[in-house]
Amino acid sequence: MNGLLTDLYELTMAAGYFEAGKAAEKATFELTVRRLPEHRNYVLAAGLPQAVDYLLNLSFTAEELDYLRGLQQFRNVRPEFFDYLRDFRFTGDLFAVPEGTPLFAGEPMLVVRAPIIEAQIPETYVLAAVTFPTLVASKAARCVEMAAGRPVVEFGTRRAHTAEAGTLGARAAYIGGCAGTSNVLAGMRYGIPVMGTAAHSWVMSFPGEAEAFRQLQKVLGESTIQLLDTYDAIEGAKRVAQLGKPLWGVRLDSGDFIDLSKRVRAILDGAGLTDARIMASGDLDEYRIRDIVRAGAPIDSFGVGTQLATSYDAPAMGAIYKLVELDIHGIKRFTAKYSDDKNSVPGAKQIFRDVARDVLARSGECGKGEALLRPVILGGQLVEPLPSVNEARRRAAESVAKLSPALRELEVAEPRAVIESRELRMLIEQTRRNLLA
Amino acid sequence: MNGLLTDLYELTMAAGYFEAGKAAEKATFELTVRRLPEHRNYVLAAGLPQAVDYLLNLSFTAEELDYLRGLQQFRNVRPEFFDYLRDFRFTGDLFAVPEGTPLFAGEPMLVVRAPIIEAQIPETYVLAAVTFPTLVASKAARCVEMAAGRPVVEFGTRRAHTAEAGTLGARAAYIGGCAGTSNVLAGMRYGIPVMGTAAHSWVMSFPGEAEAFRQLQKVLGESTIQLLDTYDAIEGAKRVAQLGKPLWGVRLDSGDFIDLSKRVRAILDGAGLTDARIMASGDLDEYRIRDIVRAGAPIDSFGVGTQLATSYDAPAMGAIYKLVELDIHGIKRFTAKYSDDKNSVPGAKQIFRDVARDVLARSGECGKGEALLRPVILGGQLVEPLPSVNEARRRAAESVAKLSPALRELEVAEPRAVIESRELRMLIEQTRRNLLA
Repeated sequence: MNGLLTDLYELTMAAGYFEAGKAAEKATFELTVRRLPEHRNYVLAAGLPQAVDYLLNLSFTAEELDYLRGLQQFRNVRPEFFDYLRDFRFTGDLFAVPEGTPLFAGEPMLVVRAPIIEAQIPETYVLAAVTFPTLVASKAARCVEMAAGRPVVEFGTRRAHTAEAGTLGARAAYIGGCAGTSNVLAGMRYGIPVMGTAAHSWVMSFPGEAEAFRQLQKVLGESTIQLLDTYDAIEGAKRVAQLGKPLWGVRLDSGDFIDLSKRVRAILDGAGLTDARIMASGDLDEYRIRDIVRAGAPIDSFGVGTQLATSYDAPAMGAIYKLVELDIHGIKRFTAKYSDDKNSVPGAKQIFRDVARDVLARSGECGKGEALLRPVILGGQLVEPLPSVNEARRRAAESVAKLSPALRELEVAEPRAVIESRELRMLIEQTRRNLLA
Repeated sequence: MNGLLTDLYELTMAAGYFEAGKAAEKATFELTVRRLPEHRNYVLAAGLPQAVDYLLNLSFTAEELDYLRGLQQFRNVRPEFFDYLRDFRFTGDLFAVPEGTPLFAGEPMLVVRAPIIEAQIPETYVLAAVTFPTLVASKAARCVEMAAGRPVVEFGTRRAHTAEAGTLGARAAYIGGCAGTSNVLAGMRYGIPVMGTAAHSWVMSFPGEAEAFRQLQKVLGESTIQLLDTYDAIEGAKRVAQLGKPLWGVRLDSGDFIDLSKRVRAILDGAGLTDARIMASGDLDEYRIRDIVRAGAPIDSFGVGTQLATSYDAPAMGAIYKLVELDIHGIKRFTAKYSDDKNSVPGAKQIFRDVARDVLARSGECGKGEALLRPVILGGQLVEPLPSVNEARRRAAESVAKLSPALRELEVAEPRAVIESRELRMLIEQTRRNLLA
């Protein structure tokens, strides 16, 4: 399953490793946050279950192998390689930072250690599987922070890069602190609260707005959220006020939220609907939420769509998946890339998180604080069930709360200190000398 | 299948339509490009097969219905509604602009006409299914235009919002004019040429670069593309020159492409490797490709990843899915949204594309030029097989070639004229008068 869901070069390299007699060499690859995405002071790790699922199920069907055999790039490859792929399964190890952990530039999120072909092929899929949810969780945390206690609901599946990505994005947004999602499949699959009641089409499908509002109350009762702005938000609010309960609240989806929410609040209060909530949605992001909250607008919750589901202002992150060491029949060789602007750091690592700083150490070292990279798969077997989405969400909330106030602001701040241990620095120097000798 | 892959409000509205006795009303929804994405003079329609697949297979499993029944939002809903969903299938019509067609602000890409519940539920999925490929195809067309005949290859699956999105993105990039993709599954599934040979890890896994290059030649023969910049691109080029053939070419993945490519070309030519190609990849987009081509750099092909797979500078587009008319037991009612900043246009439409302008007309009208919206599904049945990905690619190339030179530049130009027909203007006025009366 999913054997071909990768870049061709992973498979041509696999053939090359096989033909060069390297199939038994054990490789360690690290998936590292090379740079933080634009406008971010940290990222929140997410997407681990999807990467694990992939590794545990990665295989090749007969049809996939036939396709590969027909490609000119595999013309010189011996049939034994396709036999190897037919029997392929991941037998290696995966170490990972738990979902919901903040990470900074230079820190590895995953470490894959396996025979080199098994560690190489997953590069493409695993990068996509973890970077997208990580971006969404990070963006969600910013929105939630700025909402200052008001619930933020994820509404973005329609803008996600496929509806499936929307479902995974909803999960990530929940980890980042969102209160729920509009995506029903995410609700069922991950146990996330689902929210939403009606769109403009609902209102438009009735001859008049009052009739539309009444019918919605009949079906949804106390879950009813009336959408005000199909024709005129203030007129809409007056109609809601006339109808009274049952009502959870109202939603504004366009216009000047600060001004409209105050006027709508007054109308609702005037009708005794003081416990009806006002939700705002439509082109919201963390900056607009901050403005709205600072202005004291009486908005009780926010629906965020496009900006969350696509991580709009940072739709990709510079994560890399690099070979850091090889174990060739018991002899270790450390590897790094040393071209101009895109270096990598040799050797398997561990991150030790202390109160004020992180230390990037060699994997065998002892350090102060929490060791972030933990075994997840050993010898192709899951070590223990992964933490639930609610545990990941809790971890995110607790970890973000411990970050310095500046890192939790929207503006880019002085980065958190990430320091290389003495042993790691020595390894870097030694590897550079060896390689560039 | 996929019944829950939607926003909750589609299903609460479905329940509401059902309870309000509206299930037999026939609705027409249009999926329209409200605004062009940032930095775009047109978009290239793509993603239609995924939307069609969804509509033809949309259904609800027993497990999904159980989940819905348990939600508090459905507490007041009669069991008959869940019986309705159990038997649900799409029995309506879909009209669509063929893949590879340029579209402009205000133009509908799809029209769905069906009993209102069947037309409402697909909103979320269908929006995601067509907007993401449309964004990627549009971005690809810009890169291809700037590459001025040099092949552009899509390399972005690792940066896509899930690897599956990468596969669909690869297809869209091909429609937009890319020569191929690194995504092997896209190659098998859609018959797209696949490309790629080796990454830095290949070079790093050998004790020396020369050995890595030699081993790659052994496996890949004339398909060999040597990656030069693991340690030092110029030294890498000298090693390639020493080794000679077999060789397809070399790849630069970092550094100053303009300077490096000239020096590498000289080294290759000096060794008689005049037919070895130079490929560039790494942080490329249409602007950098334009700079490289204008500078006369001897680069023969471009690999574009992140920027294509995420449509990085425009990761979402303002497409809407709006109710435009209802047929209630033979009586038509036209609908529109009239709040401040987000209006919609009533009535089912057709686009007539003439040489210099497009006319947005009512669906029954006759017009000059090509009628872009064509029947795809009628009565729940596919009318005829969809055009192949190669036909869509050809249509894109021919259509883009007919656009004015200004629209094909990277800078935002005077928009192409999209004019409402007299009949449509009359309908807009009449509907507004009725609704706001």
